[in-house]
Amino acid sequence: MSKNLVRPQSISGFAEYLPAEQRAAQQLQDKIRRHFELYGFTPIETPAVERLEVLLAKGGDTDKEMFLLQRLDPDAEAEAKLGLHYDLTVPFARYVAQHFGQLTFPFKRYQMQPCWRGERPQEGRFRQFLQCDIDVVALDKLALSFDGEIPLVAWEVLKNLEIGDFDFRISNRKITQGYLQGLGLPENVPLAVVTRWLDKLEKIGPDKVKEELVKLGLEQPDKALALAQIQTRDLSFAEKVTALGIEHPGLSQGLQELTEVMERLFSEHQQGFLVDLSVTRGLDYYTGSVYEIRWNEHPGLGSIGAGGRYDDLAGNYTNHHLPGVGLSLGFTRIFSKLKAQLPPPTPTRVLVTWLEPEATKSRQIAAQLRARGINTESYHEAAKLNKQLQYASRKQIPYVLFEADMEIKDLRSGLQQPVDLQNWQPL
Amino acid sequence: MSKNLVRPQSISGFAEYLPAEQRAAQQLQDKIRRHFELYGFTPIETPAVERLEVLLAKGGDTDKEMFLLQRLDPDAEAEAKLGLHYDLTVPFARYVAQHFGQLTFPFKRYQMQPCWRGERPQEGRFRQFLQCDIDVVALDKLALSFDGEIPLVAWEVLKNLEIGDFDFRISNRKITQGYLQGLGLPENVPLAVVTRWLDKLEKIGPDKVKEELVKLGLEQPDKALALAQIQTRDLSFAEKVTALGIEHPGLSQGLQELTEVMERLFSEHQQGFLVDLSVTRGLDYYTGSVYEIRWNEHPGLGSIGAGGRYDDLAGNYTNHHLPGVGLSLGFTRIFSKLKAQLPPPTPTRVLVTWLEPEATKSRQIAAQLRARGINTESYHEAAKLNKQLQYASRKQIPYVLFEADMEIKDLRSGLQQPVDLQNWQPL
Repeated sequence: MSKNLVRPQSISGFAEYLPAEQRAAQQLQDKIRRHFELYGFTPIETPAVERLEVLLAKGGDTDKEMFLLQRLDPDAEAEAKLGLHYDLTVPFARYVAQHFGQLTFPFKRYQMQPCWRGERPQEGRFRQFLQCDIDVVALDKLALSFDGEIPLVAWEVLKNLEIGDFDFRISNRKITQGYLQGLGLPENVPLAVVTRWLDKLEKIGPDKVKEELVKLGLEQPDKALALAQIQTRDLSFAEKVTALGIEHPGLSQGLQELTEVMERLFSEHQQGFLVDLSVTRGLDYYTGSVYEIRWNEHPGLGSIGAGGRYDDLAGNYTNHHLPGVGLSLGFTRIFSKLKAQLPPPTPTRVLVTWLEPEATKSRQIAAQLRARGINTESYHEAAKLNKQLQYASRKQIPYVLFEADMEIKDLRSGLQQPVDLQNWQPL
Repeated sequence: MSKNLVRPQSISGFAEYLPAEQRAAQQLQDKIRRHFELYGFTPIETPAVERLEVLLAKGGDTDKEMFLLQRLDPDAEAEAKLGLHYDLTVPFARYVAQHFGQLTFPFKRYQMQPCWRGERPQEGRFRQFLQCDIDVVALDKLALSFDGEIPLVAWEVLKNLEIGDFDFRISNRKITQGYLQGLGLPENVPLAVVTRWLDKLEKIGPDKVKEELVKLGLEQPDKALALAQIQTRDLSFAEKVTALGIEHPGLSQGLQELTEVMERLFSEHQQGFLVDLSVTRGLDYYTGSVYEIRWNEHPGLGSIGAGGRYDDLAGNYTNHHLPGVGLSLGFTRIFSKLKAQLPPPTPTRVLVTWLEPEATKSRQIAAQLRARGINTESYHEAAKLNKQLQYASRKQIPYVLFEADMEIKDLRSGLQQPVDLQNWQPL
């Protein structure tokens, strides 16, 4: 029979996992969720789509990557333009503005959902990717203690995922901005352009950054570079900045804030964090603390997590003043490189054979084990023992229970022994 | 300050929950997931989008409701037409065909993901809705025992969700089709048109169905109707069909299959299931068992779950012969009417006060409780006790631990007592 087959194939930029990988991903996501909740972050979910005007309100560089929805039916009634969200910060800001009266502030939420961007596929870039975000948003004033709590939670989550060595870089934009203002910039050079070049220090190196600063007409490019080159794993960054001899009220406030945040972080996990004054998170609209996480084994991957503090999270959607601080972990990007040991491709722990003429006994045994919370399959037909064992072994089901003689076999050790259904437990 | 605000508002057909509702939804989803895994179904996830040709391969009535993706950037390179999936069966069929060589059959999977349809919003209809699907697919031959297992799992899941009274209707298309073939249809009347009218019996009543059958030119409309009106909560349906005096090999096979399936289901949950021979699931391409679940309290909602057996699940994408049987539960639809008791809007169990000048002690206590798996917040600033208690009470955090004097208060009972951090447990 010849059929017109549609060839199944993956779409580039869209990850899809085999069962064992999917189970591993699921287990890691459960760990993340569990840890977020340990700190009292509550889950929210927003629809995959937002009105286009909501997505565009922020401005910036993401417009071109957006996916819009279109109806296949040409007669579909005109409706508001909708687009898939490209991050979880914009939907969260809209959510907080919309449900303002029904939330208790400070509001701590986590959100683990896919996001979509029409990016050109390359290493570490996906067109659908799962983000795991935590944010705290408050009314009018947000306690600085959250600027320490957010990286603490994220650091612990990454440790839990056992990803190996990563650099958790922290800075405060007030330092960079105050310092540059104290230093003095040419009138026609926006602050953001300079900080953007400083932010590229790690990527392109000091010579190239200096070259760009000279092009911009900065009179003291070395002095600007000197700030961005400060990296410390203790509180000495403040002295080092002061030693550069620039004074500005914003700079002082930034140093004070970063010192308070780092005091806590260093006291909790001494070697876990790195103050890196080059970090400014490019075009994002952070106004204080900024975070950026790089995975040392995979420098080409870019940041695997990033975030910071906004003065006014939902300013595009409400007149309430809602400062926020948060961080986003790129799950899909991390998982793409994580050499996690894969679990079996099935959650089944026990296969109960069907060797007797009727399935009744096999099914009753399976039901008894399930009632005790043990994932159990009863084999689906009366088949030769060999076929049933092969099924278990291919699916890496660890135990086979022979219903005819009430014995259980551990397929890994080969050990077989009588089973007591009330008390038997898988290892 | 006047700003150009974008007014935040919900989009009709797209549900969004407040934190307490979201936590309730999350807990119910975890229950469903847990139960699917108890029976050895393994999780898979497919991207939200499929190539348009994959989505259209099935044909049928869903085309017009489809959402396509379009790039906002007019210069975006041309790429394969992509659309959001409108169910989980099509992506699953594509997945099985694509990863055929890496799966072990029979392959039991569950999938809990949102689907999208551009429907006109009305009661029980959403444009984004979470489906919870279980399916088993085998190579060449699929054991009939799965036709019983699928409804068993779904029934138990709905019981676990405590939704109240529902009708779990089961039939077998071979019965309807064999019967009608035995009865004889006018040459120009397709079988599917007749079964489609019989399927509407519950909705429009026997008189209206008969009228339509007469219009189609059926010579014995009453006889056709008599089959569809058979409903039993025991195995007597087979005798009742036989008493109608129609003979056909397909009919006999259908009765035999349905009897075997129902024997098991009735023996497991005697009152749980209803044989209803009007059920054929309209235009879906089922070829054997069919399932349809209605929620008696909410008849206007339509079916809250449905499914059945396909002769060839992935026939559009592969030449392998892959029979399947499955069922899809409409989570969003169910949740929209479920009067579940809402949990507190935060997972936090304990708030540790910050009453001393430094946060250190409060944070250490919180860390100790978290290390024992207890969700704990340390208050975010040194504030008046009243303010901290108000925060706990608004968020329905059940316990407040006063770090200054190491006592814990149960806000529900008012009871306050000394706390031993090593052994204290929330109720």
